[in-house]
Amino acid sequence: MPPASNIGTSPAFLREIAWNADGLVPAIVQDAETGEVLMMAWMNEPALLKTVETGLTHFHSRSRGRQWLKGETSGHVQHVESIHVDCDADVVLIRARQVGGACHEGYRSCFFRKLAADGSLEVEGRPVFDAGAVYPGGGPSAPTTPSAG
Amino acid sequence: MPPASNIGTSPAFLREIAWNADGLVPAIVQDAETGEVLMMAWMNEPALLKTVETGLTHFHSRSRGRQWLKGETSGHVQHVESIHVDCDADVVLIRARQVGGACHEGYRSCFFRKLAADGSLEVEGRPVFDAGAVYPGGGPSAPTTPSAG
Repeated sequence: MPPASNIGTSPAFLREIAWNADGLVPAIVQDAETGEVLMMAWMNEPALLKTVETGLTHFHSRSRGRQWLKGETSGHVQHVESIHVDCDADVVLIRARQVGGACHEGYRSCFFRKLAADGSLEVEGRPVFDAGAVYPGGGPSAPTTPSAG
Repeated sequence: MPPASNIGTSPAFLREIAWNADGLVPAIVQDAETGEVLMMAWMNEPALLKTVETGLTHFHSRSRGRQWLKGETSGHVQHVESIHVDCDADVVLIRARQVGGACHEGYRSCFFRKLAADGSLEVEGRPVFDAGAVYPGGGPSAPTTPSAG
């Protein structure tokens, strides 16, 4: 969706969200074009509000205690097309147009490993970008900033 | 997937899952045919193992402290087609063939409410079954048992 400036600073639906004890809600991001599930990460109220206001997904990093824009390091932002809320209002589903890949390991989706018949996880598909080049040096924020988990 | 009896009782991937402090992992269920995201609920290790063994989704109810088979009341079970794990191994994605509807409110998907331009939530689509008939009386377990939230 385009930046929703007409919504104002406090959309009514934010008051309906059943935030958990830490003030967070899981946000599933789905590719608006292919339907592929790309990632799940956590939002607090400011991150969800920022997502609505800017039309770009923002999340709350529990490990670093701060808000992050998906793609702030990689440029692989997610343009929000729609936001849905589930029956219990404790999970959010965001359909978005993904630039590049959602996963900090270089894959289009974070769900690139599949349970195989022998009980192990096998990689499906190939990376869509070079994670080593996009997140060079493995700096202090590189391993966790763009992670969707 | 068919019941994976060849996997045995302890698939290797279970040891790779990054369970949270409560021993749980969020499990996203996606319609294997349409790609629609149906619900998200929580699994502990026994529930995920039971899901693998039986080919039907099982979850762990935090409020009731017990495992539940999705569809145990409604018959609206989910036949597992595949199980994926994300990069951090702290979210599971299950593609399944959904019988009836996933949502205890009668909708195919629990995400039947969409953020509208005025900041409110509007219902999309129509129920696919009569929730009042499927979960009669609103008994003690009816409101929460089949809930996907």
